[in-house]
Amino acid sequence: MRENDIFQVMSKRTEISELGQFGLIDRLTEGVECANESSVVGVGDDAAVIDAGDRYLLISTELLLEGVHFDLTYFPLKHLGYKVVVAAMSDIIAMNGTPRQLTLALGVSARFAVEHLEELYEGVKAACKEYSIDLVGGDTTASINGLSIGVTAVGEVAKDRLVRRSGAKENDLICITSDLGAAYMGLHLLERERIALDGHPNPNPDFSGHEYILRRWLKPDLRLDIIKALEAEGIVPSSMIDITDGLASDALQLCKSSGCGVRLYLERIPIAAETRAMAEELNADPIVAMLNGGDDYELMFTVPLEMRDKVLHFGGVDVIGHITTHGAVLVTPEGGELPLTAPGFAAKKRD
Amino acid sequence: MRENDIFQVMSKRTEISELGQFGLIDRLTEGVECANESSVVGVGDDAAVIDAGDRYLLISTELLLEGVHFDLTYFPLKHLGYKVVVAAMSDIIAMNGTPRQLTLALGVSARFAVEHLEELYEGVKAACKEYSIDLVGGDTTASINGLSIGVTAVGEVAKDRLVRRSGAKENDLICITSDLGAAYMGLHLLERERIALDGHPNPNPDFSGHEYILRRWLKPDLRLDIIKALEAEGIVPSSMIDITDGLASDALQLCKSSGCGVRLYLERIPIAAETRAMAEELNADPIVAMLNGGDDYELMFTVPLEMRDKVLHFGGVDVIGHITTHGAVLVTPEGGELPLTAPGFAAKKRD
Repeated sequence: MRENDIFQVMSKRTEISELGQFGLIDRLTEGVECANESSVVGVGDDAAVIDAGDRYLLISTELLLEGVHFDLTYFPLKHLGYKVVVAAMSDIIAMNGTPRQLTLALGVSARFAVEHLEELYEGVKAACKEYSIDLVGGDTTASINGLSIGVTAVGEVAKDRLVRRSGAKENDLICITSDLGAAYMGLHLLERERIALDGHPNPNPDFSGHEYILRRWLKPDLRLDIIKALEAEGIVPSSMIDITDGLASDALQLCKSSGCGVRLYLERIPIAAETRAMAEELNADPIVAMLNGGDDYELMFTVPLEMRDKVLHFGGVDVIGHITTHGAVLVTPEGGELPLTAPGFAAKKRD
Repeated sequence: MRENDIFQVMSKRTEISELGQFGLIDRLTEGVECANESSVVGVGDDAAVIDAGDRYLLISTELLLEGVHFDLTYFPLKHLGYKVVVAAMSDIIAMNGTPRQLTLALGVSARFAVEHLEELYEGVKAACKEYSIDLVGGDTTASINGLSIGVTAVGEVAKDRLVRRSGAKENDLICITSDLGAAYMGLHLLERERIALDGHPNPNPDFSGHEYILRRWLKPDLRLDIIKALEAEGIVPSSMIDITDGLASDALQLCKSSGCGVRLYLERIPIAAETRAMAEELNADPIVAMLNGGDDYELMFTVPLEMRDKVLHFGGVDVIGHITTHGAVLVTPEGGELPLTAPGFAAKKRD
């Protein structure tokens, strides 16, 4: 059988890190075209778009793995269930869609009891209730390595309200929906406490004063309120993406899809006081947390210049820069320019 | 942090095996109801059903894990890619639907090179081409434990042609679309060779004469031809399910959903000569392979008695029994009756 062993016959070996995550996906999906009429948008956006007569359906699948995306030492299962729904549905609202249905497939090792899965489901159900989402598929299978979660989000959007990553135009304003980097600092606080208290017979971590960053990590909001506000104000952004890999990475993705550049102004990008305080305490750079931390589950969208007042009218939305013809630049308060960069195949900073 | 450790606070621990796979899903999804108008069928069938105006969309998510569902020692990645598509789309055709779109999310450890994933994708693309399916979503993430595959299948069906598990009526005929148990014996042949040749410097297994059972395991067909034939003949089965967990388990599922019983006649259930021969060689029971082997990816459906001739006209479809009011019984050639049983939370017999 050894001659059939796939790990022996490979004559050339290109490491995934050589291509980066996005280069890898591009290479794997090269030449993929859609044959069915109902396939409106295929690979390369936050969600796939399927024609459903009078509207579009949006579909996105995510895989969340223990030890990579979450650490159950300090991530309560109920919170994890909630976050799984938010993470999956974030791709739907990034297309300006309304979340509708969710399917969940779990791989579960013998370490888990029924009660653990009930806790996880409690969180899933709570998020589904909060955002009016129907859980329409649930499946479990055995696993040899902890908990694996496959989750599919389904949503819908009126045909004239679909927003893609690819529509940004020169001079469009770049808007974000919250301060960034808080979730990342919440994760690092939990990491620090885990290490500090490991082996302690009666650990009693003190999290007072850190509620905000912990909440941003453990129980992020789905920004469905933004989608509703955009509709109420009669705004269809020219492009949109959710901020999950970090502002820098997601801004670069948007540029790539829209064939444009971006100019972001550092002093306009909000960082919460709690995020800065935690960064200081941990000798970390809050700007790195903001730019590359990820897991913010906020939205970045672009609108034409003339919509400035309308967008700011929302409250909680910041204009942090604008679209250019090419290049991705971060402008410092002193007027210096730094290139925007992001890790490619992110060994994602997760809990 | 230890007080937050989920594995310490659990006061009661119910093992998953106590409930069985299906009992577990029932318990986890208890009380789940659909709030959105477009959610037509939720948990409990092969796929979720979503209203899309003039037709229904069908959606199903599956999780396939290395070491549980496949062993890469003898499962070529290209075949795996092909089988992943068939496995996912099998849930769509089990609702009498036509496959349309597929999304794929991979968790990949550092053991894998880009070329490995290209091989996997080659198989995915080949199956997509074979069955006119569009790959509309592809995502990769890091993994610490081998290869994890999250796959979502999307299909569609005319509203008057939707078939559920729940429509079987007393006296309906039970039809299956092929001989069963072959994939299971193919898996066991590969297992035997792997063990026999482990450590051999120049292994050279002889698979001649076993092509059929190996193909059934490594490259199953998607029975889209049956869906097309049913439409051409103007037949809408009263119920349908795909045979993936084994005939016994899936027959019991259908009974549970339809609130009925079943009577299957052992001598009418086809077992291929190659399957019998391999079973004999391995001192295994071909009837166990047929009843509980699984991974057949065939269809079991029911039709009213009067459709007997129409269904047999297909070729390749066998009537193996009929629906009763209650009880699930296997009738032996001698007229004896055995209860149909199946493992609950199947530690599925996989490669």
